[in-house]
Amino acid sequence: MDVRAALAVQAGKPLEIATVQLEGPKVGEVLIEIKATGICHTDEFTLSGADPEGLFPAILGHEGAGVVVDVGPGVVSLKKGDHVIPLYTPECRSCPSCLSRKTNLCTAIRGTQGQGMMPDGTSRFSIGGKPVHHYMGCSTFANFTVLPEIACAKIREDAPFDKVCYIGCGVTTGIGAVINTAKVEEGATAIVFGLGGIGLNVIQGLRLAGADMIIGVDLNNDKKAWGERFGMTHFVNPKEVGNDLVPYLVNMTKRGADQIGGADYTFDCTGNVNVMRQALEACHRGWGESIIIGVAGAGQEIATRPFQLVTGRVWKGTAFGGARGRTDVPKIVDWYMQGKIEIDPMITHTMPLDDINKGFDLMHAGESIRSVVVY
Amino acid sequence: MDVRAALAVQAGKPLEIATVQLEGPKVGEVLIEIKATGICHTDEFTLSGADPEGLFPAILGHEGAGVVVDVGPGVVSLKKGDHVIPLYTPECRSCPSCLSRKTNLCTAIRGTQGQGMMPDGTSRFSIGGKPVHHYMGCSTFANFTVLPEIACAKIREDAPFDKVCYIGCGVTTGIGAVINTAKVEEGATAIVFGLGGIGLNVIQGLRLAGADMIIGVDLNNDKKAWGERFGMTHFVNPKEVGNDLVPYLVNMTKRGADQIGGADYTFDCTGNVNVMRQALEACHRGWGESIIIGVAGAGQEIATRPFQLVTGRVWKGTAFGGARGRTDVPKIVDWYMQGKIEIDPMITHTMPLDDINKGFDLMHAGESIRSVVVY
Repeated sequence: MDVRAALAVQAGKPLEIATVQLEGPKVGEVLIEIKATGICHTDEFTLSGADPEGLFPAILGHEGAGVVVDVGPGVVSLKKGDHVIPLYTPECRSCPSCLSRKTNLCTAIRGTQGQGMMPDGTSRFSIGGKPVHHYMGCSTFANFTVLPEIACAKIREDAPFDKVCYIGCGVTTGIGAVINTAKVEEGATAIVFGLGGIGLNVIQGLRLAGADMIIGVDLNNDKKAWGERFGMTHFVNPKEVGNDLVPYLVNMTKRGADQIGGADYTFDCTGNVNVMRQALEACHRGWGESIIIGVAGAGQEIATRPFQLVTGRVWKGTAFGGARGRTDVPKIVDWYMQGKIEIDPMITHTMPLDDINKGFDLMHAGESIRSVVVY
Repeated sequence: MDVRAALAVQAGKPLEIATVQLEGPKVGEVLIEIKATGICHTDEFTLSGADPEGLFPAILGHEGAGVVVDVGPGVVSLKKGDHVIPLYTPECRSCPSCLSRKTNLCTAIRGTQGQGMMPDGTSRFSIGGKPVHHYMGCSTFANFTVLPEIACAKIREDAPFDKVCYIGCGVTTGIGAVINTAKVEEGATAIVFGLGGIGLNVIQGLRLAGADMIIGVDLNNDKKAWGERFGMTHFVNPKEVGNDLVPYLVNMTKRGADQIGGADYTFDCTGNVNVMRQALEACHRGWGESIIIGVAGAGQEIATRPFQLVTGRVWKGTAFGGARGRTDVPKIVDWYMQGKIEIDPMITHTMPLDDINKGFDLMHAGESIRSVVVY
């Protein structure tokens, strides 16, 4: 079938709106009509050429929501008409990783997904008879896409596509980092570095988890109001505290009889390796945990003195917020529908597919929290 | 009173056997007759001058066992005749750290201990009227010492001093890293880097915890027999596998349907920051945890790509094996007396105080696992 897509032709070039061909679903696959998709920094990372594993031509996009319109042989958990969110981290429930109960990083289709292919090693997309790569197993920058059954979270039918598509990446990554990876407890003190689309979701995750002190750190003072909107209690602009950000934050978080400072939990949402170090070192001695969410540039390294770890700080990372997509994404959709979390104010811009490059422009200019393409 | 001590006069010089003066216990303090003390790498680290926080003159030693011979005012949990192990990590049970239930790093006397003083800011030791520093709050290289009540673990009276003194540091550090910090579960796969006195105790901790695959890594092939003696199942000499130690270890630990390798838990017992990185990167994707036990040189840093953490590896450290000394040390003494853990074979040399420098020589030559001074 012919589908409309924003095609990533090569690194560093704008997307091109094109008609591409899509094969129907094979065994264990489903055909999805994408109704809406967010534009995420990870799409930008790949499109820019900074991603060493980026493949072209490809159909990017990994933060969508849509409806099942056809199912391939052997599909048992989905039927035509089901509403779904595509999962770039699938949940097969039978690989060693899924069975370990220790990680969400399902390995069932890892190899082919990284090659921009479906699990059988081929692509369903093509243009002029030449294959086009899938992206992160999702390719939501097309109005129809094919996904493995294990990479679809079935969600309630009353949830609006143009809002819950954001749960496909940013919302789940931020909230999940708090509740799945850090397992933040009520009364905790936390610091969030970088108040973009992920950082704001970390903040609302901290509010949900009952944290007492939620400090947001950003170079842009406009982010203060944004952070407060979702539960931030304190704001710090590093440019205004000089070079001593870590001692400043440690001092801010002093508490208890011994007046030792440092956060119980810190979150890097910047992708900057220097900030990642600051986030670790702003943790409380004895138990503070720092969670890396941001994606660093190729080849960049984090560093610290091992003393920071020997005295009890823990350095962790998270991918897709530690969420098991088929299990956890529907719950987060419920939380949105119940008003436990907010999404609407973060979606600052919507646009048709034809204008998708404007969404990237808004991101570059720092004018959007999230842009959503509505098909 | 006059006591016999091995005095650390200055960095880089051998210890000098001397008669020093010891004041009796003040409020909340006890006088201990030390019956035996191990000689640990940390004593060597300070004596060598490599420890930037080393103070001289001082009475080193922090791995002892002895008997309470006097108690100061206000002491409630100890009486004359009690057998104790001094704790360089005290357990006051009332500071924010002790009450957090998240760390063993009691802060009650942290400031003065780091200055080589008792909690009131003065020293009990002197020579010729001039104060001599305490060391790690213990100073077990003297036949009598004064300790805060909160820095003494009361132990059973049938435990032999010349063996259980090792529980004051090395045994608890190694076993505790496994059971308190890593919380290793039955069936786990683990790698231990460095098979000295700490590494061998990590190995017997892994055996105790029911680990399936216990890989020991050491540059010295003589350590193979040592590791196997305490439960090691596989030995790797990095010199014999070339520059690709991490892929070698990952390949060794491949298991499960997806054949992803990497250990569930790794332990650095070397203090070498390059090995610390290897230990992290030899962890299993998704859940592997690497625990830093070794103490690095001043100013040295660990580094890795953040991708290692984002894909689920966790970097931690441990001090005193995460043990709460007054609570956990008596249990470990029980385990020794019950035969659940072994100590005797690791104590390769004993000597009187007069020969304590020979203990350091044996350590330098790599001939001892542990030397113990018996008073």
